[in-house]
Parts: sequence; structure tokens; C-alpha cells
Amino acid sequence: MKRFVVYFLCATLASAAESGPLRGYSTDAARTEREWEAKFRAIPDSAALRAYMQRLSARPHHVGSPYGKDNAEWIAAKAREWGLDAQIETFDVLFPTPKERLLEMTEPVRFTAKIAEPAVSADPTSSQRDEQLPVYNAYSIDGDVTAPLVYVNYGIPADYEELDRLGISVKGAIVIARYGGSWRGIKPKVAGEHGAIGCLIYSDPRDDGYAAGDVFPNGPFRPSDGAQRGSVMDMPVYPGDPMTPGVGATKDAKRLPLSEVKTLTTIPVMPISYGDAQPLLAAMNGRIAPPAWRGGLPITYHLGPGPAKVHLKLKFNWDTKPLYDVIVRIPGSTFPDEWIIRGNHHDAWVNGAEDPISGLGPMMEEMRAMGTLLKQGWRPKRTIIYCAWDGEEPGLLGSTEWAETHAAELQRKAAVYINSDGNGRGILQVEGSHTLEKFINSVAKDIDDPEAKITVWKRMQAMRLALAPEAAVAERAEARSRDLRIGALGSGSDYTAFLDHLGIASVNMGFGGEDGGGIYHSIYDDFYWYTHFADTDFAYGRALAQTAGTSVMRLASAELLPLDFDNFTDTIRKYIDEVQKLARDKRDQIVERNRQIDEGVFAAINDPRRPRNAPPKETTPPFLNFAPLENGFAALLRTAKAYDDALAHAGENGGAALARASLRDVNARLIAVERALTLNEGLPNRDWFKHQIYAPGFYTGYGVKTLPAVRESIEQKDWKLAEEQIVKVGKVLENAGEAIQGATTELDRAK
Amino acid sequence: MKRFVVYFLCATLASAAESGPLRGYSTDAARTEREWEAKFRAIPDSAALRAYMQRLSARPHHVGSPYGKDNAEWIAAKAREWGLDAQIETFDVLFPTPKERLLEMTEPVRFTAKIAEPAVSADPTSSQRDEQLPVYNAYSIDGDVTAPLVYVNYGIPADYEELDRLGISVKGAIVIARYGGSWRGIKPKVAGEHGAIGCLIYSDPRDDGYAAGDVFPNGPFRPSDGAQRGSVMDMPVYPGDPMTPGVGATKDAKRLPLSEVKTLTTIPVMPISYGDAQPLLAAMNGRIAPPAWRGGLPITYHLGPGPAKVHLKLKFNWDTKPLYDVIVRIPGSTFPDEWIIRGNHHDAWVNGAEDPISGLGPMMEEMRAMGTLLKQGWRPKRTIIYCAWDGEEPGLLGSTEWAETHAAELQRKAAVYINSDGNGRGILQVEGSHTLEKFINSVAKDIDDPEAKITVWKRMQAMRLALAPEAAVAERAEARSRDLRIGALGSGSDYTAFLDHLGIASVNMGFGGEDGGGIYHSIYDDFYWYTHFADTDFAYGRALAQTAGTSVMRLASAELLPLDFDNFTDTIRKYIDEVQKLARDKRDQIVERNRQIDEGVFAAINDPRRPRNAPPKETTPPFLNFAPLENGFAALLRTAKAYDDALAHAGENGGAALARASLRDVNARLIAVERALTLNEGLPNRDWFKHQIYAPGFYTGYGVKTLPAVRESIEQKDWKLAEEQIVKVGKVLENAGEAIQGATTELDRAK
Repeated sequence: MKRFVVYFLCATLASAAESGPLRGYSTDAARTEREWEAKFRAIPDSAALRAYMQRLSARPHHVGSPYGKDNAEWIAAKAREWGLDAQIETFDVLFPTPKERLLEMTEPVRFTAKIAEPAVSADPTSSQRDEQLPVYNAYSIDGDVTAPLVYVNYGIPADYEELDRLGISVKGAIVIARYGGSWRGIKPKVAGEHGAIGCLIYSDPRDDGYAAGDVFPNGPFRPSDGAQRGSVMDMPVYPGDPMTPGVGATKDAKRLPLSEVKTLTTIPVMPISYGDAQPLLAAMNGRIAPPAWRGGLPITYHLGPGPAKVHLKLKFNWDTKPLYDVIVRIPGSTFPDEWIIRGNHHDAWVNGAEDPISGLGPMMEEMRAMGTLLKQGWRPKRTIIYCAWDGEEPGLLGSTEWAETHAAELQRKAAVYINSDGNGRGILQVEGSHTLEKFINSVAKDIDDPEAKITVWKRMQAMRLALAPEAAVAERAEARSRDLRIGALGSGSDYTAFLDHLGIASVNMGFGGEDGGGIYHSIYDDFYWYTHFADTDFAYGRALAQTAGTSVMRLASAELLPLDFDNFTDTIRKYIDEVQKLARDKRDQIVERNRQIDEGVFAAINDPRRPRNAPPKETTPPFLNFAPLENGFAALLRTAKAYDDALAHAGENGGAALARASLRDVNARLIAVERALTLNEGLPNRDWFKHQIYAPGFYTGYGVKTLPAVRESIEQKDWKLAEEQIVKVGKVLENAGEAIQGATTELDRAK
Repeated sequence: MKRFVVYFLCATLASAAESGPLRGYSTDAARTEREWEAKFRAIPDSAALRAYMQRLSARPHHVGSPYGKDNAEWIAAKAREWGLDAQIETFDVLFPTPKERLLEMTEPVRFTAKIAEPAVSADPTSSQRDEQLPVYNAYSIDGDVTAPLVYVNYGIPADYEELDRLGISVKGAIVIARYGGSWRGIKPKVAGEHGAIGCLIYSDPRDDGYAAGDVFPNGPFRPSDGAQRGSVMDMPVYPGDPMTPGVGATKDAKRLPLSEVKTLTTIPVMPISYGDAQPLLAAMNGRIAPPAWRGGLPITYHLGPGPAKVHLKLKFNWDTKPLYDVIVRIPGSTFPDEWIIRGNHHDAWVNGAEDPISGLGPMMEEMRAMGTLLKQGWRPKRTIIYCAWDGEEPGLLGSTEWAETHAAELQRKAAVYINSDGNGRGILQVEGSHTLEKFINSVAKDIDDPEAKITVWKRMQAMRLALAPEAAVAERAEARSRDLRIGALGSGSDYTAFLDHLGIASVNMGFGGEDGGGIYHSIYDDFYWYTHFADTDFAYGRALAQTAGTSVMRLASAELLPLDFDNFTDTIRKYIDEVQKLARDKRDQIVERNRQIDEGVFAAINDPRRPRNAPPKETTPPFLNFAPLENGFAALLRTAKAYDDALAHAGENGGAALARASLRDVNARLIAVERALTLNEGLPNRDWFKHQIYAPGFYTGYGVKTLPAVRESIEQKDWKLAEEQIVKVGKVLENAGEAIQGATTELDRAK
């Protein structure tokens, strides 16, 4: 669902080594593990990846489609063919599909939008019209509205602040927003909050059309009539089936009536192409859009309202559709009740070659390779569960319903969840729990980049060095001297329920950054496009299978789970500094702005021909008491260091002490650390989200908010709430410290 | 010639006062001066400004045109009508005009560029085709070349570094560059240095066409076929008549043969509209332009070379044309040999309403008002000279030739030169010698903004506060607590010869920032455009007359010239810090880049499908000895403080000591300070430019380089030259200190 677009990882120049110690392994066990890993990495095959993609993307395979079910059954059959235990679990979920779609301009000129993507003759699957889901946004409500247009840029809260300054209201209007700047579902949500009655979202050619590069089929970018489907469910409240929040959408689950569902939009919303958008935008008048709001169409961007007036009519089938999650288990030999879970979705919006098959194929190669190793005698210590999720696109349905259904067992057993969702050429990009940062650095040092002929870790580091601004001396020094930092997880793929709802340490990975395109969620995301413009020889698909598979194996067979609290604590320190700075900056900003209002600065700079309202004066924020966060952090820091000492001791003499320890008990304590980072009451405005370190932003959707309860309270200037949350999050850090101390105590018993 | 596009001034919240002391005035003299100034400011009349513009822009009035001569004679007649002594001084200068212009694409499709701006029916003067200069760049050489196109972004040195990284050479190619990023003459200069054989410069719609706002005649921005004429003479070497460098182009002046002229381009160059550019750019292929290089056309920007191949043929009449400078003198009563000079050009590229009449009109109103005051008994102490320059557009011809002709007398007598060049709505924008910073702040506090109903100074301050980035706490504190800083002068208008060649303290001023447009140097810069889209009621034209006229009067009648060395020294400190930081940063950058080359970073991040060459390894720069600059600065600082003390003493008791001082001697010393900032040998690579604090950049053209000899040596990594120049500029600062000390000594005699 979400594509990689930036380089997530931050950096220690060291040469790749496929030998040497492995964290959590005794010396002998490490040697054995490295041998199995080397065998594993030789197996994934680019030709197989190509064949999987050709088969899986041959026809549209969205939720509820015949080919979607067929794909699930084929994946399960393949797993069984490789000697693995594969099951299909089904759920029944709300999945609306379009019954009627109409967009027409009624004034000042008549124009009817095509809202259709034409077949391209070079591209054989683009003509499968009968099976294609039309261009629409899933979980938009039905509607029939006519109103003047207002252009709202990305349609995020800051854009409405600017519209207020310009004296433009969207009340009673239909807004037209461009894709980008936030997850798409934020746009109708914020538009509705401001009184708009409809919402159009278009793909501006500056972002992924001709301004970005040659358009399909001449190049990989979005052609004039290409549009981006996608979910607009209010997932920052809760993802998954809208009718069964918090519980699995099994046959007999209790369901909310549609009228009580909170995650549908409040206004009708539809995505359109830039071909459809241009006549609408060109017919607008009123103030000229601020420079940063202008896109790549050959027109002057006006804000309106009107004179362009449009009629938007949307009607959906509010049907329940079956989901088919493919669940493949490799039982653990030593710790069968500690689970390493690996997932990638199989459903798409249309043919979905890049999204999701380019990530699913490598996962299948991991399964095939492990099937081969099992035949050779390999036995992972922990249980490995491979999951091909259905229904990711509409709202992380398959993973969320499965996680909710099995919540109790997962909370006891799940150690780590590893996700991917599409793959491309370039640099390994990893986001995840920082307890896994050290681990993932160790894996990246053992994988070869297929083009650069150096390790993927070295490429990641080089990219960090190259992208650091000239003045960022500290950043470059860091990239040269420690593990590369990984970004935090927001949302946009199937790790969400595992990490945010259940508190399971998670990572998301994929290669990317070297190929762009504009076929995302369109009929052109298909085999033809992928094999012409993306990882055309599947070399990076093979690298993804090697990276994710090595991760799974190394996690599965470690005597001690290789979680680390040192890098984790270091990152928490950064987050605490950030929220304190945020509070300070917010205060300074309000004080300065109030002063400028008093001084008459805004009146003085006003241009009477293009008036801008002065911003409203605001109450000066109080200074916040961050001591509870600092106290919690101090406890965390202390226990993290103690665990490091205990681990170093346990690792002496080839890990002799490890043999004496009750590994099951230590591992259980280690697994409990990420759980300790959750609060059952959840975040202030959304109780489904339990994790207190990471959450998707309430007003960003994809973009992560770290220490979300504290950070979002400050951002929304709710100072009282912020102080309350500082206390709670401080306690969470203390809890995590206690959990770490539990592991240390267990480990020290073996001394 | 050059338009104001940014806010130049930087800031003390205090209320406007038209009473109180005036620097350089005894108490009684200040009172009298303020009364005359108040009378003066009541006179300028918006209706008169409108009438001047209508008359002066009624027909094309470029160098050598019948209407240009007619305008000069009309201005002189007007001045005489107002009771002033007006003369016309003539010079004979090289001014090429087009004889043949052809631009056609020969491959892969045939296309012939229009290179013509169509008449617009609403706009009466746009149809005066017979008298219009066609679209061309003056001082391009003749040429007849055919070659593939390469797109070079702005065509500045950094762009060629990027092309080198991408492996693209312009050798033997015709480059197409967009306007912006530098003065236009830099583009063919740098293209020629890199081996290109021709150059096209087009106006991208992102910069001043539809992407910036509605296009003419619906709005003020550039229509599809609008093009920007302009000079491409190599003015950073020397401006003025190419055949008479350093001397006046009088009838009998010794002239260089055309073959020895150094300021013509080395390759043929022509400006084109975006209507003409689009088919050429659309026909290009090869690498896609880097994101920052892409403009607003609805195409994918490719770099080439080719397959688009163009044929450019240019032939010019290499004629000598007469210039008509209008020189108006108001003799000084007390210090007739101390001159305050005020200028604005009268020539245009076509009808030139905005450029230059919107600035010339206010200057005429200043003359008319002073004529009126003279009749009422006002007598300025110093001689005032008003100059309406001819030939500014092709190369600052009229002002440069006049300044060179009268160089010896000007060096003895000229105290201050005040320039304007076009005017618009908005904020007062001032750049100039920092010895005038305090003075210009005092004037701005006495002028009312016609729309905001506060002083223009308060608006300037408010804009500074509003534009300061949120984190720029020090910048805002400064804007609230001291004089607003003024920017330094680069080039682009008639102050150049006065400041840079002769060392006469200069300022350039005008209102702007609230109206944009895309008619610069086109046939649409005319009365219709100006009265529909710019300072339509001439309210800011009146404000410019008030500001510049008050400046002239206050400078002309001060007992002591109100130059100040305190703000000046403060600014010099900043410049010295800047060049030291520049040297440090250059060194750090080279060290870091070399390290990354050694580490293999560039190879590691390379995408084999879009390869980029690693930059070349460079010798590590030495640390430079900045002590001579610091020593010079210390001397300057000491003497500036001593002058302040002496001035404070002289000002006691209503300026009683002033009456005893030999003001003529003190003033002579004050005038000498700016002269002391020059070196007769000039800058290292261009001896016409004598000033050692300010110069237009050798590779920016408009953009100023402060401490140019030092700064440009560092930028060009000529470390040996930099060390030599540090010594010379250090000595210059000492010289300035000595000149200031001379004034202090004279002033102290009156104790």
C-alpha cells in the first residue's frame, strides 16, 4: 500500500563479514547458523520471481475478486509443494465498491470527467476492463453534491490555516486537493472538519507525471488519464474491518451497524487524473495559489471558490467480502511458542505488480528456500509463520483481523514481525522498532548489493554520507561510527496491528530509491510496467528475499533473542529532546507571533490588493514539566546498561553461561519489553493504538509520530493533556526498564 | 535595467518623527531644513506622474531612436520650464541592432521560432511594430551555427559542474538556458567558456509566466510569445561603451577597433519566449533534468544533447549611436564644489513604462518641486545634479561615459550618488554604501507609506520581522533594536560607475515587492500594463519622489555630510566573518569530499542506469592568513569610534562647535573616505572595478560580491591570490581609517 520514497536509514565503515560472532548466539551456534544462512542465500532465484509476478499479476486481484482468491489458493498450494504447512484463514469484511460515479463541471463551462484509465496497446493487461476496479476511494460515503470548487493544496491542517489567512472558507464547497503531503485519507477528513461537502483528490503532474519523468508507456510516470485509487478509511482511528474494531471479523463476530462505524469519511471523495483535473482547475478564479501550492499543469493555479462548480455523485455497494489470508507455519524445534512472523500482502487495487507482488514474490522465494533447507536437515529453534495477507489495500484488513483474532496468543508468543510491501531497485530501506536496529544492521552487513558489488549496508552508509547536508558534520560522524539508524514506523502496511495494537517488535523493509514511477494504484501497475521500468531483472527482488529471509532465520535460531536496548535508549533520548524542543518552539512561536500582532506587524505588511488576515492571538503556553519523562528515561538507561553488562558476561568463553541460563525465561522477558511500551488504554483520542513510542500521526496517516501522546498533544496545543501524557509515557519507560531488568536478572542467574 | 525582486533592507521600533535633530545639522539648521522638506514633500503629484508616463512611454525610446532623443529634449525643456539649468550631453557609443535573426529546429522535426511578440488589441502601444526593437540580446556577436541542443538550467558555473557529473558536455552544442539565477550576460559567457557554439535564453513560465500568475492582458505575467530583450555585454569586466573602456565616449575619444573589444560575447546568443522554447525542449531527449532544473512547461525536461538540432543565425548592424544624457544643475550656496548627484535612466528597450519611466517620473517631480522651492527662497548648500541617463539598457552607457568623462572632477567633488530605476508598489528597498545606512534610515522614518498609513521605515521593519525565519531570534532582535540594515550594491543600474569605478558613496532605491509581472524588457512594458497592474494610481511613485527628494535635500544642506562609520564598520565586520567562514567551509567541503572519494561513497551510491561521475579529487586548501584583514579592521574600528566621539562633542549646545569648524575641510575628509575604499589597480581580473568592498560578481553579474577580491579568489580556489588580496584589502581598511581620522582631526580643531 505505501511505497518507499525516501532513504530511511542513517550509519560504521567496516567491511562485510559473513563470519564472526552473532548477537544472541554462542560461538558454535553462530558457526552453524552462518552455514545455513549461506546455503539459504544461494537459493532465491530471479527467474522464479519473474514467473511469480507474471502469474500473480496476470489479472486484477483485489479483495473479493475471483483472481484474488485464486492467487491465495495458488500461494498456499506452492507452499505445500515446498513441503510447508499452509492454511487459508478467512474473514468477512466490509468492502464497498462503486455502483455509480459521476463528476461533471456545471459552471462556467460544462465538462464531464472521464474517471477512467484507457488501455495502452503495448501493455497487455491494461485492457482487462471487465475485472478492473474502477477509479475510486474506498470507504468514501455515498453522496450527491454540487458546489463551487476550492483548491486546498494538499488539504492538510496547515493548508487550511493559510486559507484562513487569505479569507477563504471551504464551507459548503467541494475541495480539490492534490495527492501528497499526507496519507490520502487525511484530505477528506480535514476537509470535512472544515465544512466542505465533497472532496476530489488529483495526481498533479509535478509529483508523479510528466514533470517527474517520461510518462507511461514511454517511461514509468503517470500518464494524463492515470489515477490513484486508494483507501480513505480513517485508519489513524483504527484500521481493519470498520464493523469489527478490536476483534477479528470472523463469521460470528459481533458487528457494528454501518451507521455506527467511525472510520468512513464524512463527505464523498473521489480520486481523479490530471487529465480530468486540468479543465476544473483552469476554470477556477479568485486568489492565486501561494507559490508552494502550485503544481505542474500549464495553468495559473487559483484558489476559488469557483466560478468552477462541480457535481459529484457517488454510490457504492456496501457489501461484505471474504478475505483469504495464507498462513504458513514452520514449527520451532526448541522454542515452539516463540514466533517469528513474516508478512507481505497479496491483494492489489488492480493488477498490482509492484504493489504488492514485487514484495510477495521474494517472500515466496524465502518459503521455497526454507522448504529446501528443511529437507537438508535445518530446524529453526523458533516457530516461523509466513503470512500472505489479503485486504491490505482497503485498510490493512487481512493482517488486522488475523492479529485481532489471535491477539491473546500473539501477545504471549510473537517475538518479532517482519514486513515488506513492494520492492524496487536501490538502497535497503528499513524502519522499525529500535530494539531491532542493531540486529538489522548486522543482517545488512551480510547481504551483497546485486549491482554495486558491495554489501547493502555499505551502500546504505554511503547514501547517508552523500545525502547529509554539507554542514551536518555530526550526522556524518555518526554515520561513520555507529550502527546506521533506522526510521520509526508510521503506518501504511501490515505491521500496524502487530506493532501499534499488540506491541510486537516489528520491522518493514524493501529496496528502493533508484526507480520512480507514477503507476501507483493504477491499472498500469502491472507486469509490463515492472519488467520495463523497475527491478526489471529481479536482482533486487532476490536481495530482498536474502535480507528478509536471513533476518527470519537469524531471529528464529538465536539462543537469546538479539534485541538490543542500547540503540533503543539512544533513540528514545532523541525523541525526548525533540518533544521538549517542540514545546519550547511552540511557546516561542506563539510569544513572538502575539508580539508581532501587538506591534502591528501583520497590518503593516498587508497588501490591500491581496489582503491577508492577521493570525489570531493565542494564549501563551505554560512551560511543561518534562521531569516524569526524564525520570522514566533515567530508569531505562540504567537497566539497558545493566543488560549489556549481563549479556557481555554471558557471551564470555564462547557463550558458556548461555548454556546454563534458562533461555526460555530470558527470552520471555525480552519479548515482554516491547509489550511494556504499550498502554491498554491506548492513545488519548484512539484507544486501538496502544504503543506509546510509535504511532501513525492523527493528521499525517503515513507519517510517524514518536512519543505520540505527548507530541500530538503539544502539536494540538492541548497543554493540560500533554502534561498528563508526559506522566503516563514516563511510567511506560519505567515499565520497559523493569522488563529489561527482568531479562537481566534471569540472565545473571546463569553466572 | 534591473528590477527589485526581494526585500533588501533589514531594522528600531520607534514612531515616525518629522521633528528632532538631524545628523550633520545644528539645531537651528535642522529646524529650517525640516520646514523646507515638509514643503517639498507636499508637491509631488500622482496625476503629473501619470502624465509623464503617458508621454514618455508613448513610443519606443531605445538608444538611437527618434523618440529617445525627443524624450531627452522634452525632459530638458521641462526642467528649464521649472526654472532649472538643463543641458544635454552627448556621447557616441557602439550599439548593435539586429539585421538578421533566424532560429529554426532542423531535427527531429522542423520548426521555425517566431521570435516576435504579437500586438494585444487591448493594449494600444503594443502594435507599434515599426519602431520596436525586435527580440534580441545586445552585444551578442554575429553567428551562423547549427548544432544539437543541451539544456543547461540557468547556465551558471554550478550547472556545468552538475553536467560534468552527469557526463554531458556542451562542446560544439548550442545551449538553451532559462532566464534567472544570474544576470543574463553570464549565461553565454560561461557557455562559451565550456565550448558551446551558441546560446538561447528563454523565459520559463514557472518564473514569470502562467505559473507565477495570470498572463497579459488578463494579468501582469508573461504571455506565451513574450520575450526578454537585454544586454549580454560582459559588464563584470567593464560597463559602458565597449570601444572606450575607462574614458568618455566623446566625439574625439580614442576607440578600440571592434576586434579588440573584450566585452562582446564569444558566441551568438538570442532570447526567446516560452512559446518558441517549448517545441525545442519537447524535442530533446537524453537524461532527465535534475528536479531543481525543471520549469513550468507541460513537458518532461531532458538535458540532451539533441536529438533536437537547431540552426541559429544572427547578424547585427555594428553602428555607433548618439546618447543624450540630460544634466540638470542646482548650484550650491555654501559648498558649490560638493555635489549631490541623483539619476535615473530615460532609455528603454521598447516603450519601457515600468523600466525606467516609473522611476524617472518621480525624479522629474523632484526637479519640479525643487524648482518651486527655489522660487520660494530655498537654497541648497551643496550643488545638486539631476541626471536622466540615456543608454542604461545596453550597458549603463550614458552614466558610465559621463562618469568617465568627468572622472577627475567627480573624484574631487562628488559626495553622494542616489539612483533609482523603475518603481512599484510595496516596501522601500534600499541598497548602498553602508556609510549611508544610518542616513537612509533617518529619511525612511520621515516618509509616509501611501497605503499602510505608517512610515515607510515601519513597513520595512515589519517586513523584516515577518520574513525572518522562526529560528532567527538574533535577526529579529536586531530588527527591533538598531537601524535597518541595507544591502550592498552589485550591478544592474547607473550607480555602477559612481560607486565601483570612482568610489562615490551611492544608494539605489525604489518601492516594490507587492506587484510582480512578466513584461520585463518586452513590448508589453507600457502605459497600459503599468496603469492596470502596477502602481496604478502612482501613489508609490509619489512616495519615491518624496524619499529620494528628501534624501537629496537633506544631503545637500547638511553642515556636515551625514556619513556614518559606525554601521559601516559593523557591516565590514560581518563581511570579514563571512569570507573567513567561506574559506573554512571550502576547506571542510574539499576535505570531506576527498574523504568520500577515498571511501568509495560516490561509486557506492551510483545507479548504473543513471550513472553520475564522482567529482574530481582536489588539493586540500591551505589555511589562509586573515590577520591583515583583522589588523585593517581594528584600525577602522578605532577611528570610527573616535569620529563618533568628535561628532557628539561637536553637536553639543545645538552644534555650537560646528559653527567654529572649517566645515569645508571636514566634509572634504568625509568625502575622501569612500574614495579610500578603492584601489587604482582595481580588482585582480578587472581593473575598471576599483572599489574593494563592493563589486558585481564576475560570475553573477547582478549579485554583489563584498570584499570581492578576497571572496572571489576563495570561491575560485585561488588560495595564493586570496592571501595577496587579504593584504591589499587590509591596507584599504587602514586607509579608510586614516581618512576617517582626518575628518576627526579637522573636527576636533573646532573644540
